[in-house]
Amino acid sequence: MIPNLNLVPFVSVDHMMKLVLHIGVERFLTELSAYVEEDFRRWESFDKTPRLASHSAEGVIELMPTSDGRTYGFKYVNGHPKNTREGRQTVTAFGVLADVGTGYPVLMTEMTILTALRTAATSAVAAKHLAPKDARCMAIIGNGAQSEFQALAFKALLGVDRLRLYDIDPAATQKCLRNLRGRGFEITACNSTEEAVEGAQIITTVTADKQYATILTDNMVGAGVHINAVGGDCPGKTELHRDILLRSDIFVEYPPQTRIEGEIQQLAPDHPVTELWTVMTGQAVGRRDARQITLFDSVGFATEDFSALRYVRDKVAGTEFYENLDMLADPDEPRDLFGMILRAAKPAPAGDATRGGG
Amino acid sequence: MIPNLNLVPFVSVDHMMKLVLHIGVERFLTELSAYVEEDFRRWESFDKTPRLASHSAEGVIELMPTSDGRTYGFKYVNGHPKNTREGRQTVTAFGVLADVGTGYPVLMTEMTILTALRTAATSAVAAKHLAPKDARCMAIIGNGAQSEFQALAFKALLGVDRLRLYDIDPAATQKCLRNLRGRGFEITACNSTEEAVEGAQIITTVTADKQYATILTDNMVGAGVHINAVGGDCPGKTELHRDILLRSDIFVEYPPQTRIEGEIQQLAPDHPVTELWTVMTGQAVGRRDARQITLFDSVGFATEDFSALRYVRDKVAGTEFYENLDMLADPDEPRDLFGMILRAAKPAPAGDATRGGG
Repeated sequence: MIPNLNLVPFVSVDHMMKLVLHIGVERFLTELSAYVEEDFRRWESFDKTPRLASHSAEGVIELMPTSDGRTYGFKYVNGHPKNTREGRQTVTAFGVLADVGTGYPVLMTEMTILTALRTAATSAVAAKHLAPKDARCMAIIGNGAQSEFQALAFKALLGVDRLRLYDIDPAATQKCLRNLRGRGFEITACNSTEEAVEGAQIITTVTADKQYATILTDNMVGAGVHINAVGGDCPGKTELHRDILLRSDIFVEYPPQTRIEGEIQQLAPDHPVTELWTVMTGQAVGRRDARQITLFDSVGFATEDFSALRYVRDKVAGTEFYENLDMLADPDEPRDLFGMILRAAKPAPAGDATRGGG
Repeated sequence: MIPNLNLVPFVSVDHMMKLVLHIGVERFLTELSAYVEEDFRRWESFDKTPRLASHSAEGVIELMPTSDGRTYGFKYVNGHPKNTREGRQTVTAFGVLADVGTGYPVLMTEMTILTALRTAATSAVAAKHLAPKDARCMAIIGNGAQSEFQALAFKALLGVDRLRLYDIDPAATQKCLRNLRGRGFEITACNSTEEAVEGAQIITTVTADKQYATILTDNMVGAGVHINAVGGDCPGKTELHRDILLRSDIFVEYPPQTRIEGEIQQLAPDHPVTELWTVMTGQAVGRRDARQITLFDSVGFATEDFSALRYVRDKVAGTEFYENLDMLADPDEPRDLFGMILRAAKPAPAGDATRGGG
């Protein structure tokens, strides 16, 4: 008898917050980064497909599946910029990990918080391979929900300890400052993007809700800088002036998706880009010299969610940071689904909450 | 303030069984059929796409999304024939309904039981339009997990009250007999398919785990019969001899999917078929005369799951047949996801389990 075949571990938002606090944000980001990098290094073992998107006037709902042949994962994620007007999140997400051999889900988890963490972890992994080796100062343009995660991931992985913050809304900058207080950063709140990028070796752009905005213009970007472009992530949403792209060596996750959703949607469809995974495996060169501008055109890909799901599965096993969901029908006799329903009419013996189990 | 934005109603397997028993199986099937037919009648208002399948040596994991522009739904479903050897189900499923306007999930539910119900409801809806008007006797070839649901759906919608059962495993037939006892059927357990189809006006084939099997041969099918072919539903899995197909008028759900997965994978890719929805709207003719053989080549389509999700959402509202899952991050300030995590470290005031709510 295999016990509790009907149960799927579920990590709620509350459990995810407690898990992150229990592990510690920086350690969580460091460990998660290792999972992300490990999966990038075995890129070719994944089934890859651009996300399956359902567009409407108000936003988009997407399914992002992938599989490494042993484990299958997918994320449900929406993007609805108008949501914040009604007190809702622009983006919410949840995800599922399943066993390829049986098709049975083995984990369901909230992924709004987890996506914020994996996005930051991926940015930091990319920067580890692309940013100047001595980079300690980062500008963060856009101080919304993703900004603190980016800051902490770059601190944990690269040792970035000086931040220059700018947001068109000073309240967002103040919120970011407040949340990062006491975490070992020297932080400067700036009054413009121009001011924020002064002296920064890394520029992270992570603004929201802009249609073909130009957060960075060409003159703002000096030689040797690494640009971590996170905010441009769907058709019609970009952050960088096209001229910056033409001066940069561009690194992407999955070209078929990035050409539609990333900054490079502004360029010709055959503009040369380098796949990030090839840098990690040594097949391609990342940063060549001190004057080169590197650009990570991040849009977020299914394998990163897969890495995050794997990490959470490994971390919650044996802890109190999940509950079991009675999600899978599990009749005593597989062909007797109908009989299982009939038997549910009779009260179960005390203590028997799991309906048999094979 | 919108309360409890973080919560998503979840219908567990236990709740689904209790809901079915509370409503009554036949009434559930009748009401669900009305939702299925309503959605078939507005077929053109749906975003349709063949299911997104991830194949492996052991089986398949699929995502089946659709949307009517106001509501979005998807089902996760696996198919692993070898699972039963380890006490697992061949097929398990769960599904989600979401609001297109906000992208927020509004229902999550088990769908193993619900899929069995919607498959039977869809078969009965099709037969209502295709079977001989006076049909009261149905053969069911294959007496596994789907058989009782088929029987009860045809009783509820068409008044079928005589059943002729056959399965290569007599234990399956006995199980089906036992489960249907006292439900108003006259049931004959048969020793062969030939015997089972004698005098039947409707033939339902719903066998499992066969590679290009021939459950029905040409000589078994007389004039005027309606064939409800449920078991052939993936590439390489069919139940009917090709000659039967050539003598039948064939009705399908969504041709791009059925040509890959259905009985008609045995035919030329341009073999004429009629889309079921056009019969329901009156654009095409269903049964023309008493000697015609009609065939519903059922594979199961995303809109049927959508109908089932809609029905369950409507039925559980205001009842005790669901629980709330803390699945969506809902910070007081949408841009302050990180602050929400920090605040989770402090114990919440007594009674405050919902973290604010915009």
